[in-house]
Amino acid sequence: MGGTSEKLACEKMGGLIPAVIQDHNGGDVLMVGFVNPESLAATQKTGEVHFFSRSRNKLWKKGETSGHVLRVREIRVDCDADALLIRVDALGPGVCHEGYRSCFFRTLDGQGQLNVVDEKVFESESVYGKPVNGKKTQS
Amino acid sequence: MGGTSEKLACEKMGGLIPAVIQDHNGGDVLMVGFVNPESLAATQKTGEVHFFSRSRNKLWKKGETSGHVLRVREIRVDCDADALLIRVDALGPGVCHEGYRSCFFRTLDGQGQLNVVDEKVFESESVYGKPVNGKKTQS
Repeated sequence: MGGTSEKLACEKMGGLIPAVIQDHNGGDVLMVGFVNPESLAATQKTGEVHFFSRSRNKLWKKGETSGHVLRVREIRVDCDADALLIRVDALGPGVCHEGYRSCFFRTLDGQGQLNVVDEKVFESESVYGKPVNGKKTQS
Repeated sequence: MGGTSEKLACEKMGGLIPAVIQDHNGGDVLMVGFVNPESLAATQKTGEVHFFSRSRNKLWKKGETSGHVLRVREIRVDCDADALLIRVDALGPGVCHEGYRSCFFRTLDGQGQLNVVDEKVFESESVYGKPVNGKKTQS
């Protein structure tokens, strides 16, 4: 794996650290995923973002199902080396498996209510298929 | 605590979820912290960002030492309710305890090298004091 990944403080969280995905064009925060040394190495090697899926317990290339790949423009590391900021060109209309451009399409107001504030940009089922066991994947 | 926090999927990570802090003015990602239901409730009540410190195992108001408080403009929740995006007005010159505007002041290049690419905006020791046991706090 080399020196790169060993510099990251993955031990704080069971081998994983959060990676913020930011649109290089415009600066919107699109999603947060988790990476481990293996997925970071795959990301650096291919130039396309790979996460580690906690629910599926495996390496996961963002866009492997949808084609909505995240092309890496820049990777930044925070002061404590326990979080990444990955600036990307996002291929496809949106990153969210629910059909939005960003996974952060809802606000939380002072009364604890979640309010959808963005517009859907694609039909989720036409990209990801019907939900399996009521749950869609995010690929 | 009410219904708000119960909607968040904190159970995935020992009661904590990552919160991305984004500058409302310009869109730069400033830092990533972790929140639990208690720190989210304090954030919503006061309008100033509170985290849960994993290293100190306690509620932590950002800026309690430095005065570099994060005033909440908007809280967003992601599709899986396991990450927050908090857009803020950042008081003070920078959020990073190392003296930078953003904690993401280093890039990671293809050879695994970390390169400082931002300029320091304040003297860390004049704000936070000298490091204790070689480690500064981030408050």
